[in-house]
Amino acid sequence: MIASSRLVLAALPDIPLIREGDDLPGLILEGLARASIDLQDNDLLAVAQKIISKAEGRSMDLRNVQPSLKAEQIAAETQKDARLVEMILKESVKILRMRKKLIIVEHRLGYVCANAGIDSSNVREMDDNESMAGEQSNFVLLLPEDPDKSARALRDGIRRSAQINVGVLIIDSHGRAFRQGSIGVAIGIAGLPGLLDLRGTLDLFGKTLLTTQVGIADEIASAASVLMGEAAEKQPVVHIRGFPHVLREGSAKELIRIKERDLFRQ
Amino acid sequence: MIASSRLVLAALPDIPLIREGDDLPGLILEGLARASIDLQDNDLLAVAQKIISKAEGRSMDLRNVQPSLKAEQIAAETQKDARLVEMILKESVKILRMRKKLIIVEHRLGYVCANAGIDSSNVREMDDNESMAGEQSNFVLLLPEDPDKSARALRDGIRRSAQINVGVLIIDSHGRAFRQGSIGVAIGIAGLPGLLDLRGTLDLFGKTLLTTQVGIADEIASAASVLMGEAAEKQPVVHIRGFPHVLREGSAKELIRIKERDLFRQ
Repeated sequence: MIASSRLVLAALPDIPLIREGDDLPGLILEGLARASIDLQDNDLLAVAQKIISKAEGRSMDLRNVQPSLKAEQIAAETQKDARLVEMILKESVKILRMRKKLIIVEHRLGYVCANAGIDSSNVREMDDNESMAGEQSNFVLLLPEDPDKSARALRDGIRRSAQINVGVLIIDSHGRAFRQGSIGVAIGIAGLPGLLDLRGTLDLFGKTLLTTQVGIADEIASAASVLMGEAAEKQPVVHIRGFPHVLREGSAKELIRIKERDLFRQ
Repeated sequence: MIASSRLVLAALPDIPLIREGDDLPGLILEGLARASIDLQDNDLLAVAQKIISKAEGRSMDLRNVQPSLKAEQIAAETQKDARLVEMILKESVKILRMRKKLIIVEHRLGYVCANAGIDSSNVREMDDNESMAGEQSNFVLLLPEDPDKSARALRDGIRRSAQINVGVLIIDSHGRAFRQGSIGVAIGIAGLPGLLDLRGTLDLFGKTLLTTQVGIADEIASAASVLMGEAAEKQPVVHIRGFPHVLREGSAKELIRIKERDLFRQ
């Protein structure tokens, strides 16, 4: 723990709509300049998964998807688009729970999440001029192929351009067992710990803490998510100063509980 | 959503160790003064559950607890102190899962949490001078009787003394199904929303969001938890400016998923 009493989060203004192939490190450095933020070593950058996926071309036109029989069956059961269900199955290892409009899966990346993290909001039809208001889009957005790798690429790009060593988090919103409301979580990280292991450290009165592991990257993700918002806020990049821990290489996989140690997954 | 691009969190310095009956609003206002923070309407104050419980006298001497037969049986099964298990049972509605050293319950307040939120770290033996290093304490700390009420009392106390209208969150750390690491959550709130309901709002491209509810108080709790830390950081109160939503009366109960709508509780 580094002594720190202030954590300052700033959403970068006027980040443009992102398209496949866009130079995210460059656009983020421009956003920092617009916000008059002088990037420093040990700063963090939290980036919404959606713009990473868009830059990486993870948008998918459902008109090109042929649902399998299994997808058709699940679609009927859950009242979802069979083509979307087909993509959910392709992105998942296992279906854990289903109900109307909701399929909770173990994603191929290890997360337990709804609908395999596939998003149909804030995805524009790239080649189409038809009005979208109120209509179901044919376009959906998949999670990045490898969000840790995406985070490392962004961190490395910033380092190359600005000679500054930052930590990067890629943020998605997950629903939760037992609690209402989605919260921001880290699905990819580079250059910061995912988990802090405090087992063996002493508390205020010199007693040894027995079990405490802190999901620090998820806590930062939730903090950044407050500014990112969910609907039309257009603030997909948040700069964070004052992270009170030493930066190290890390992985969002630290935050995934393997199913053998999970008491609720079955 | 109020336009906001900055969220600033500051831990208040030198909050003293709290004892039963202490004047928390007064101590927090003194801490704000020490930090040169000029409290404003719409600011938030996040307070660690431990100091609320201590001020409310929720410390319990296990030497006065007589375990039931059921508690003895569960203690043998989980290798926990039978007197502690007795208190866990008293604070709970139902045991959901057990394993060595861990009992996951539905707390009488509705949360699903480990060991009924009962904490034995950072609890000093008030009447005893023996050294604590490495020893199991006889003292444990229960959650507040009614954390929403505790939050309202703190909010009202601040308003009476300083004529400022703030939101208050009482923060605990919870483990999670599916993900490693505990994160800060809001177990009591006053004067801010627990849950934001964005269903029916429009996304960037004019499409209606169908399912988004955001656990905004939990996101703020996680943000504050980054500065509070878990071990010896002694930063139990965090001031937050820039919350991008309209304050309203709220309850941490908004964040609790009732078991009938929970796909993983059984």
